[in-house]
Amino acid sequence: MNTNRQWLLRKRPHGMVTRDNFEYAEAPIPQPGPGEVLVRTLYLSFDPTQRGWMEDRESYVPPVQIGEVMRAGSVGQVVESNHPGFARGDVVQSTGGWQDFQVTRPEQGMMGLSKLPAGLTPELAMSVFGVTGLTAYFGMLDLGQPKAGETVLVSGAAGATGSIAGQIARIKGSRVIGIAGGAEKCKWLKDVARFDDVIDYKRENVNQRIGELCPKKVDVFFDNVGGDILEAALNHINMKARVVLCGGISAYNATEPTPGPANLMNLVIMRARMEGFIVIDYLPRAAEAIADMSQWMQSGQLEYQVDVQEGFDKIPDTLNRLFTGKNLGKQLLKLADPF
Amino acid sequence: MNTNRQWLLRKRPHGMVTRDNFEYAEAPIPQPGPGEVLVRTLYLSFDPTQRGWMEDRESYVPPVQIGEVMRAGSVGQVVESNHPGFARGDVVQSTGGWQDFQVTRPEQGMMGLSKLPAGLTPELAMSVFGVTGLTAYFGMLDLGQPKAGETVLVSGAAGATGSIAGQIARIKGSRVIGIAGGAEKCKWLKDVARFDDVIDYKRENVNQRIGELCPKKVDVFFDNVGGDILEAALNHINMKARVVLCGGISAYNATEPTPGPANLMNLVIMRARMEGFIVIDYLPRAAEAIADMSQWMQSGQLEYQVDVQEGFDKIPDTLNRLFTGKNLGKQLLKLADPF
Repeated sequence: MNTNRQWLLRKRPHGMVTRDNFEYAEAPIPQPGPGEVLVRTLYLSFDPTQRGWMEDRESYVPPVQIGEVMRAGSVGQVVESNHPGFARGDVVQSTGGWQDFQVTRPEQGMMGLSKLPAGLTPELAMSVFGVTGLTAYFGMLDLGQPKAGETVLVSGAAGATGSIAGQIARIKGSRVIGIAGGAEKCKWLKDVARFDDVIDYKRENVNQRIGELCPKKVDVFFDNVGGDILEAALNHINMKARVVLCGGISAYNATEPTPGPANLMNLVIMRARMEGFIVIDYLPRAAEAIADMSQWMQSGQLEYQVDVQEGFDKIPDTLNRLFTGKNLGKQLLKLADPF
Repeated sequence: MNTNRQWLLRKRPHGMVTRDNFEYAEAPIPQPGPGEVLVRTLYLSFDPTQRGWMEDRESYVPPVQIGEVMRAGSVGQVVESNHPGFARGDVVQSTGGWQDFQVTRPEQGMMGLSKLPAGLTPELAMSVFGVTGLTAYFGMLDLGQPKAGETVLVSGAAGATGSIAGQIARIKGSRVIGIAGGAEKCKWLKDVARFDDVIDYKRENVNQRIGELCPKKVDVFFDNVGGDILEAALNHINMKARVVLCGGISAYNATEPTPGPANLMNLVIMRARMEGFIVIDYLPRAAEAIADMSQWMQSGQLEYQVDVQEGFDKIPDTLNRLFTGKNLGKQLLKLADPF
């Protein structure tokens, strides 16, 4: 291979993302300068928050500019290194974007550049030990603070973040209810992730089912969805409940402002808290999360699932799998095997 | 006087409260039993939260039942006492409701029964040192946690709670912006309560003015209003902002569910917190608040304002003054002078 295939942002989306928002391009393979490293992308990470990066508005990271390679977290392999910390063949994590090759350095990009710990597969590095796993860990433990005997409700429960967040609450002794769409996801949550109960929002009345499944009300609501699901959960919060705002995927493709829940006053009546966070703030504490989660995985308490697509051509459509609910667990796309 | 005039709840309101929701009645003056005290009402307190007590729904206190005397905080005078802790003539605070006479005991009612400290006027006891002052103190300090140099925004700023909350933030060294309706309230906030700036929501674009007056964004938003004002404030929150949900008067008379803010995701992007509280939880700590606020009043740092109506017949209409924005400061109604 002697070209660098790329998907560039061609125009900003209005509503659902389509292939038309991107432009396929081929560029020469870039050459690393002093202190730089040339990395070949092996896997791309797909996360709902990437939809926000495509919009021209102030957020926690600058928007992707028109004509730029679409931004995405990645695992790759060092092809050529001018940096003493990296050698040809090293498998690394960075923000490679939708392209085959990237020239980067440790202090560059949202996630920097770091070697994968020995023995860690790309799939694990990009799920449980990646951004989504850290999001679940710090969101649930720092903000949610689930206690033994409490009831924890998780929306987007079969997603990369929700599935880990719910299991962490279960490990802490809470009763965990997940909300997900479809029989396959619900079955996985019950049988593999061992959630105490599951609500299938595609065929059940979520508000009613929360009431039935949470007779002692909801102490922690870990929300990835927003909209009607958030409103339903707020109807059932307990005194001193913690609502962890992790994401609001229900509105990411909205073309009009989406009204919030009509029952925010329940936060007053129940002396409850709703709090947002961004995992970037917790990256300096990543070692804590990795230590705990490694141990939970070794002891069989923490399960994970990845959905791995393949093929450069499939990249744009794979992003949409997150919004059509196709993915069970972490959405990845594999571009190449390591040499 | 040998009858006990009363306003009973006749039917639950739909939309704004009218006289038709209440029924005037006359009952015999009740007789205190063992351990009980007969109290004559001198002043009634009017608070937006009382609108919620008229609805048939679960809340932080049980609803007022149809046929019951409308519930309200009050200051009264002991006429007859069978309790060793109270003597005829004592001026006391309790939850007397919309009636001339009440038989009660210390452990009864939302606020219990307590003697006013010597030298404290009913007006002060029911404003700065009453429920609204304590709400302002604990909401602002425990939840808002304003710091020197931070920007604090208060809605319903000319009300009993907002006016004290804003001044407390100013005393703590924050820059304080108030949102209120009308020139008189805005002038009082600037000239007397010494807010740094004021937005008149009746004639200014609130969202735009917050942006102009808060160039360093909003660190604490103390909200009494909800609705569009909450959404406007959320557009301008700073990193790690605290949104103190004190009330949502904009929706208290709504006949349909009122959608919440469309920009709750700003809580995520800005790692911000929105939290509700009920002052009842803080009553055991009232002495802290009273000690601080006494000192601030003596040193001229804390100003207050009461709006005192008179006449038993005016009671129902006085409640509505809160919702039509007629009151500047604490809304009271005087029924009698002490003997």
